[in-house]
Amino acid sequence: MSFDISPAIEISGTVAFAVSGAFAAIQKRLDMFGVLIMGFITAIGGGTIRDVLIGYTPVAWMRDNQTPLIILATVTATILFKKYINTFKITLFLFDALGLGLFTIIGIQKGINAGLNPGVCIALGTINGCFGGVLRDILLNDIPLIFRKEIYATACIFGGTLYVLLITRMDPDMVKIIAIIVVCAIRIIAVKFKLSLPRFYA
Amino acid sequence: MSFDISPAIEISGTVAFAVSGAFAAIQKRLDMFGVLIMGFITAIGGGTIRDVLIGYTPVAWMRDNQTPLIILATVTATILFKKYINTFKITLFLFDALGLGLFTIIGIQKGINAGLNPGVCIALGTINGCFGGVLRDILLNDIPLIFRKEIYATACIFGGTLYVLLITRMDPDMVKIIAIIVVCAIRIIAVKFKLSLPRFYA
Amino acid sequence: MSFDISPAIEISGTVAFAVSGAFAAIQKRLDMFGVLIMGFITAIGGGTIRDVLIGYTPVAWMRDNQTPLIILATVTATILFKKYINTFKITLFLFDALGLGLFTIIGIQKGINAGLNPGVCIALGTINGCFGGVLRDILLNDIPLIFRKEIYATACIFGGTLYVLLITRMDPDMVKIIAIIVVCAIRIIAVKFKLSLPRFYA
Repeated sequence: MSFDISPAIEISGTVAFAVSGAFAAIQKRLDMFGVLIMGFITAIGGGTIRDVLIGYTPVAWMRDNQTPLIILATVTATILFKKYINTFKITLFLFDALGLGLFTIIGIQKGINAGLNPGVCIALGTINGCFGGVLRDILLNDIPLIFRKEIYATACIFGGTLYVLLITRMDPDMVKIIAIIVVCAIRIIAVKFKLSLPRFYA
Repeated sequence: MSFDISPAIEISGTVAFAVSGAFAAIQKRLDMFGVLIMGFITAIGGGTIRDVLIGYTPVAWMRDNQTPLIILATVTATILFKKYINTFKITLFLFDALGLGLFTIIGIQKGINAGLNPGVCIALGTINGCFGGVLRDILLNDIPLIFRKEIYATACIFGGTLYVLLITRMDPDMVKIIAIIVVCAIRIIAVKFKLSLPRFYA
Repeated sequence: MSFDISPAIEISGTVAFAVSGAFAAIQKRLDMFGVLIMGFITAIGGGTIRDVLIGYTPVAWMRDNQTPLIILATVTATILFKKYINTFKITLFLFDALGLGLFTIIGIQKGINAGLNPGVCIALGTINGCFGGVLRDILLNDIPLIFRKEIYATACIFGGTLYVLLITRMDPDMVKIIAIIVVCAIRIIAVKFKLSLPRFYA
């Protein structure tokens, strides 16, 4: 690939996750600092847990000047334009799906670089994609959404498995794009058709 | 000891903790993925926090092919046989007590290997034994059970203290067995006689 | 400075944070172990997250014999004198403000030592000062107080920014004292005049 789209998608994903955290905090009537910190934690939480578990420290956002500034700008914009947030709902959802796909693949790739086995790499990718939202929900005192509703982590697991199966057999850039598209597609289809995983009653 | 029983007990403990997490998730009506992830986190949470605090990374379950598969099989079995779970209640409780004892001793031993002082080692053992359950309760939006009911961590602290006192004075394998038995015995007696720690009213 | 007051203030801060955790646990009717562990986590939580994120492991309280003993003694005293806790309320609040100031500066200094950029150092200082209380509130199943009420983290951010701006331009000990005073002063003024950050309604 002569044109690397990863940074652009990663920024879009960070923006979408930061908006989702900030917006959830506004709905729970947190103060300004609470809104800011929830935006941060939602955007960088998954990657932080990934780095702590692998032992890549200082964790990614600490070595990176750009991400904190992007999140700060995003949260500020969320606060200023909160009235119009519903207008952007579909755009945000698509960013979120893209971010989910890319963060999953970034997590898997870091696991492969650390020499971990494929199953663990898929788990890392899922953690990278989903656990920012898990931290957001814990801090806002809800049972994490991804455990209750819609297909979310499942999209990461499917896309991640595909990535691990194909990465040694095809052009890596092509595999990345395919896996990201699969994660996004599963997520979008699940929301559009209101699919969810079965529950069990004890 | 010519016959090392540790792996067998560790597997039993992992199984019991995975069942406890999965079962709690089923009772809160989480979806399939939620049940799986709760089984995982309950089983590997204590060891993960231990490794992150000491700095043993990638954390244990990432370097181990066996544990994730055991948990996956256990959670699947829990879902399939959930109707009959009450039948196994006593068996599960005994596994859980055994796992608690062994995980406590594993945590202490890792602390000793890292050259930490005895009090810190006992704390590590207690974290190893108990914090999977703490994470389970936080994620399911409850105040952690071990802070409210029955003698749980106290068993780890007693058994752990005994271990630290005896380890330089007796055969290490013997000390391990004694400490594990003490943790189990305190736990079983506490549940049988409904013992609990005093509370205070402010 | 020929007379180093840092250890004395750090101990006061640890004591104040341990009391705050233990007292919150007593109010939620946790058992004795729950009260102890909440005292610990509130006192060492911020520094532990800081060390895990930077990669300073084993984390600080594990390498230190003194802090666990201070916390143990503090929690015991809190339990014994809980009736009279309201008498000490103002004293405790002042200790807490001092501890907040010092923990913030310690966190920033550790970030500078690790070669992290100024914004990240301020974030680390804020985490160091505030996240013990965040863990306390999560474990007790509340939305963290600092996201909802009063100016708390804001004091850390202001004092921390001042520290980062002045540290290369003035005598380091002087800068430390000024930054700690600023954190304390903002915190005390905010509580005295019931100042809080704006909230937003979605």
